[in-house]
Amino acid sequence: MPQQSPLDIPEGDPFGPHNLPYGVFSTAGEERRRIGVRIGGYVLDAGAAAAALGSPYAGLLGQPSLNPLLAAGRTAWKDVRRALTAWVTDPGHRPSVEPHLLPLEDVVLHLPYEVADYVDFYASEHHATNVGKMFRPDGDALTPNWKHLPIGYHGRAGTIVVSGTDVVRPAGQRKAPADPAPVFGPSVKLDIEAEVGFVVGTPSEQGRPVALADFEEHVFGLFLLNDWSARDIQAWEYVPLGPFLGKSFATSVSAWVTPLEALDAARVAPPTRDFPLLPYLDDSGADRPGGFDLHITVSINGQEVAQPPFASMYWTAAQQLAHMTVNGASLRTGDVYGSGTVSGPETDQRGSLLELTWNGRDAIELTDGKRTFLEDGDTVTLTAWAPGADGTRVGLGEVAGRIVGTR
Amino acid sequence: MPQQSPLDIPEGDPFGPHNLPYGVFSTAGEERRRIGVRIGGYVLDAGAAAAALGSPYAGLLGQPSLNPLLAAGRTAWKDVRRALTAWVTDPGHRPSVEPHLLPLEDVVLHLPYEVADYVDFYASEHHATNVGKMFRPDGDALTPNWKHLPIGYHGRAGTIVVSGTDVVRPAGQRKAPADPAPVFGPSVKLDIEAEVGFVVGTPSEQGRPVALADFEEHVFGLFLLNDWSARDIQAWEYVPLGPFLGKSFATSVSAWVTPLEALDAARVAPPTRDFPLLPYLDDSGADRPGGFDLHITVSINGQEVAQPPFASMYWTAAQQLAHMTVNGASLRTGDVYGSGTVSGPETDQRGSLLELTWNGRDAIELTDGKRTFLEDGDTVTLTAWAPGADGTRVGLGEVAGRIVGTR
Repeated sequence: MPQQSPLDIPEGDPFGPHNLPYGVFSTAGEERRRIGVRIGGYVLDAGAAAAALGSPYAGLLGQPSLNPLLAAGRTAWKDVRRALTAWVTDPGHRPSVEPHLLPLEDVVLHLPYEVADYVDFYASEHHATNVGKMFRPDGDALTPNWKHLPIGYHGRAGTIVVSGTDVVRPAGQRKAPADPAPVFGPSVKLDIEAEVGFVVGTPSEQGRPVALADFEEHVFGLFLLNDWSARDIQAWEYVPLGPFLGKSFATSVSAWVTPLEALDAARVAPPTRDFPLLPYLDDSGADRPGGFDLHITVSINGQEVAQPPFASMYWTAAQQLAHMTVNGASLRTGDVYGSGTVSGPETDQRGSLLELTWNGRDAIELTDGKRTFLEDGDTVTLTAWAPGADGTRVGLGEVAGRIVGTR
Repeated sequence: MPQQSPLDIPEGDPFGPHNLPYGVFSTAGEERRRIGVRIGGYVLDAGAAAAALGSPYAGLLGQPSLNPLLAAGRTAWKDVRRALTAWVTDPGHRPSVEPHLLPLEDVVLHLPYEVADYVDFYASEHHATNVGKMFRPDGDALTPNWKHLPIGYHGRAGTIVVSGTDVVRPAGQRKAPADPAPVFGPSVKLDIEAEVGFVVGTPSEQGRPVALADFEEHVFGLFLLNDWSARDIQAWEYVPLGPFLGKSFATSVSAWVTPLEALDAARVAPPTRDFPLLPYLDDSGADRPGGFDLHITVSINGQEVAQPPFASMYWTAAQQLAHMTVNGASLRTGDVYGSGTVSGPETDQRGSLLELTWNGRDAIELTDGKRTFLEDGDTVTLTAWAPGADGTRVGLGEVAGRIVGTR
């Protein structure tokens, strides 16, 4: 009997060699940040393994951030993934690879990329309809532009934090309709938005749009994202220029970026479009479907509260990229964009407490009490999986964050 | 008679030793970027001069970007300015300093800082009132929140360009009310917004607001900013999440950052407030007035079209900084924020063509023809001055950009 190896991954493990997400880690003994690749319950020190194996990618993988790898472009992404797959599957490589595997519980995970710009979209028809019904009850739930373009806005890149970072409850102005003037204080409607984020690798030139078909040339991978939202601050501030302080205090992202290549089997067609799309957004003749069949779970203090289905999103990530650049706006390595809250058609598929509690009207029951919005001490965790090849599942890295009181 | 020196600055020069704005330059002969300080019609190679003089700031000034100086904090800003002032005014320093002066026309100017996040405000009551009257004619011109908080939103940091960079006309969706569906094409309502930008030096911690009184601890200086705007794209996209592609294609900034210290004599009280302000925004007891008496001129193809007075802005830069961080959002070195379009009460004080032509209804006359919005080939230039001590004027670096056709 050969000795048990960390590379003897149990069948069905969602972090098997078909997945191989990238992150950045350090250890208590060595604070230097370095690129890690998750395999089973372990993290491969990718740069060290590459050096041990004499790989030409030892330089790219020996960095303290994913940005150089992201900037290297799609051919490099494919080559590196092919090499990593061989290292973790070929028994001949084990003696070189095994010394560079660390148990997941022994590493500290960091924000894996330096964020350039951050854009957040609003691409779930179910979410936008729910919000429209609550906030604009006298008008149409969807604004007239909603099915003609993927609505988005810029968010604050500097407050994106990695999973596990505490989130300080924001203070700010709020004004109920009956209040004579706004009042100031800690948000009383602190919420989540369960989203999927995308990170750009290959940059583009200012003045030159990126075509729908070039999505995979520019976008490296995806990850779970929690767009924390203070609904009371947002409601008072957002007309006419959009969300600002209701969102900018923190956005949490997973420590693990799943490369798009790992999600080939998860591609699904987006919903039928209700209006003809302008050519730059028309994906009806695309080579492969633009949606991703990601199954998300939202938990509060370990208790599941919703299962938003990413496959139900009206606008795809490729359409969002094409739209974001159609005016000539350039892309930079490290640009991040969020899908917008993922909500499905069912009440238990809603990706925000705003929708789950209908703006606080219908509390949800947790074992530790009722919730309308988040309380100090609550921990919110998003997890997800996607179908892989041959009946496997591809696990996405979780994103978790705990609320702490306003300082 | 001593020989004429570049440091014999004519009296009344707005770029005399009382000003000393910072930039980053290279030359045809030496492409290496380095920090320059403008003095009269010359640029001082600040790092080289510092090295020649044995200054302890040779390292900080010998960088390819202002960011390390910005990050060094207010004490360093004051010390460096004191040293520079001595170098350009003390005749004993001339032999060391003069070899490092280059004629302005011999240098190439670059974006002087790496932009972290970019926020744009909406702080002129006259501008917001004009826009409200045009776009929401049936309601109040100002939204109910306008006089309670400085409305702002995040813009695209990656498309901020230095003065002199051509601006490609953006294409996008637009839809006139009578159109059955949106159409796509180059913007037909390309506009400017004359603004003042501020750049953050000292960062702040996530979760900890920055107080109104700490403005000068965090903000290094200011500069002119042109927030190019495609009004047709903006009008169709901006409800409900604010401006996105109508703005994100380009924002032009001056190559020169004027340190706040150079503007001590330009401080003025902001307009009387019509509503009591919440404590975090209340500047009625401030040590010094929060406004800046900057006199801006907008020119198209060299012809003056407006003179917006920055002193008329309702919200100050200190209030904007306090608001932007009151929810715990952190500041990073290189964060840039714009004042919002500067428009005064008079028709020739309006900082956008939208207002100057009342959304295209009343064309303005230039010597080369009428204009409602910008045509390809048009060059827009913003210039400004502020009062200095003893009747001097402090010149701000211009920001210019030429429109080129959609690619």
